[in-house]
Amino acid sequence: MANGGGEEVVSNKQVILKDYVSGFPKESDMYIKTSGSTINLKLPQGSSGILVKNLFLSCDPYLRLRMRKIEDTDELFQSFNPGSPLSGYGVAKVLDSGHPDFKQGDLVWGIVGWEEYSLITQPTTLFKIHHNDHVPLSYYTGILGMPGMTAYAGFYEVCSPKKGEYVFISAASGAVGQLVGQFAKLMGCYVVGSAGSKEKVDLLKKNLGFDEAFNYKEEQDLNAALKRYFPKGIDIYFENVGGKMLDAVILNMRVHGRIAVCGMVSQYNLQEPEGVHNLMSIVYKRVRIQGFVVFDYYHLYDKFLDLVLPYIRQGKISYVEDISQGLESAPAALVGLFSGHNVGKQVVRLTTS
Amino acid sequence: MANGGGEEVVSNKQVILKDYVSGFPKESDMYIKTSGSTINLKLPQGSSGILVKNLFLSCDPYLRLRMRKIEDTDELFQSFNPGSPLSGYGVAKVLDSGHPDFKQGDLVWGIVGWEEYSLITQPTTLFKIHHNDHVPLSYYTGILGMPGMTAYAGFYEVCSPKKGEYVFISAASGAVGQLVGQFAKLMGCYVVGSAGSKEKVDLLKKNLGFDEAFNYKEEQDLNAALKRYFPKGIDIYFENVGGKMLDAVILNMRVHGRIAVCGMVSQYNLQEPEGVHNLMSIVYKRVRIQGFVVFDYYHLYDKFLDLVLPYIRQGKISYVEDISQGLESAPAALVGLFSGHNVGKQVVRLTTS
Repeated sequence: MANGGGEEVVSNKQVILKDYVSGFPKESDMYIKTSGSTINLKLPQGSSGILVKNLFLSCDPYLRLRMRKIEDTDELFQSFNPGSPLSGYGVAKVLDSGHPDFKQGDLVWGIVGWEEYSLITQPTTLFKIHHNDHVPLSYYTGILGMPGMTAYAGFYEVCSPKKGEYVFISAASGAVGQLVGQFAKLMGCYVVGSAGSKEKVDLLKKNLGFDEAFNYKEEQDLNAALKRYFPKGIDIYFENVGGKMLDAVILNMRVHGRIAVCGMVSQYNLQEPEGVHNLMSIVYKRVRIQGFVVFDYYHLYDKFLDLVLPYIRQGKISYVEDISQGLESAPAALVGLFSGHNVGKQVVRLTTS
Repeated sequence: MANGGGEEVVSNKQVILKDYVSGFPKESDMYIKTSGSTINLKLPQGSSGILVKNLFLSCDPYLRLRMRKIEDTDELFQSFNPGSPLSGYGVAKVLDSGHPDFKQGDLVWGIVGWEEYSLITQPTTLFKIHHNDHVPLSYYTGILGMPGMTAYAGFYEVCSPKKGEYVFISAASGAVGQLVGQFAKLMGCYVVGSAGSKEKVDLLKKNLGFDEAFNYKEEQDLNAALKRYFPKGIDIYFENVGGKMLDAVILNMRVHGRIAVCGMVSQYNLQEPEGVHNLMSIVYKRVRIQGFVVFDYYHLYDKFLDLVLPYIRQGKISYVEDISQGLESAPAALVGLFSGHNVGKQVVRLTTS
């Protein structure tokens, strides 16, 4: 139950979407609203909401999809409203709660506003954080949050991997890719990742245990690059980018290969998505291409934690984060995803406490 | 064991591929070799081959793929050799056999040459016909042969259909499509097919029990056409054509929809396959696109016959064939597949007996 009665109105800085975005998003597509937005930190009597202080915000590629005007009500994501704050995954502390499942002082991760404080009225995607003993709280925007669950569900549930298989991961140093690669190594697979800079390639090979990695921007011919790293072909492709990379990968799949698709970040800023031409090869090779959405797998979250927390504690899995400081840095951090500015999971830290 | 010893050399008319084909195949890409080709109808002592007289030849779209120069040894199909006869599925009678599994007088279906008589040295794809009591022999090139198994495996094994689901089939009056539609109706699905003429559309609706059918050539906007027939979307798409149709279908799939791909006939005559642009939708809709090859399912052939033969005998499944007469008609029959000339399964009958 909300405490009720009290009044504690404070200002609440927000990241506002100016207007629907087309093409590459720019920092100027958003602005920071510093005055005129306030929030009462005490819930009114009888409220079933949850009032949180946001600690970390997560920059995820799918947010770009919500910055465009979405006409189709069937789509998974709804548009942000121009003039209103963005929202997305974050880590937060409960300041007041009228909801039976959450109480003051709880740490949570889930969907919050891009603002200092959020009132959550429908906690459909809100998880209590129980395991904060050995891991940074920011991990709940990444390895222990939505991207981690995406890697887990996509790799183990969608791809049905087997020891010794050949695994390729695009956007491999990103929030999801770096974890898929480490899962695959722990399973005894051969793992190659692609990324967009030498720094990221080095990270994959030296810090994250990938067998090989390459900078796709330096490859004239992606098909040839893949043939170099996979002379026997690819069993599992964890697809994060789409477009030309997907077309090249399809040509290099092995018989009964699997492609798990959770997103296609290379396509999000295009007015017209690139065409994929080589689909006929999935017939010869009996390839399965499976789209999936992490929401469908959240019931496995506890099982996921049981797997991944020991790995983290034992140092068998690392996680690279790129943390920017302050709500004001959020627009640049988000925009940076699409030029590959971030190295590892992009997080925004809102408080120093 | 082959009878051995004897000599019975006869002439053996053949359909010869002139040269590798690019673009739409033409009758003149093949010729009938009437003289200079002979065959001994008695196997030599010790042979383990099977000598057959071909009764029916099957015209299948995949044959087009073997008419081009295939460099990739990994591909499922190898090129035909210019100057040599084509080969493909057919129904034949065993004249002599040195193979323990086949004896003189057996009726068989499987891979034979496009010629009057064939010597089969590797009977890897050769099935004995046991059930010739109630069905035409030509059915073993269609409903009871490779296309039938393709429909069966693709629909039941790949698509995991459920009663009441919405099923769309392209090339729906073809050798495979007409059977998929009838399987789907028998399962209690809502079934719509596309085809390329009014005659075929009528056939689907009036003779084959499809709920609806449309002529894709008369639709300006395939997406709109699909929305008209599937206001709630498509659960299962049995893909035979690829290209623009696939792109439109992807936009209309329902959540957890399945697309079984056994071929993409609209693409076979193009130098560069069309691009498919809407793949991102498979993420939102959690769609599975599964390439498959009928060869992988031939171990289910007896199970398939147990299902389909009673349906045929009870009149619950019909099958439309387009039978052309004589080996000389084979090039035109094959070429006609790609202009949609055939109505139903295209077969070539070689003998009148």
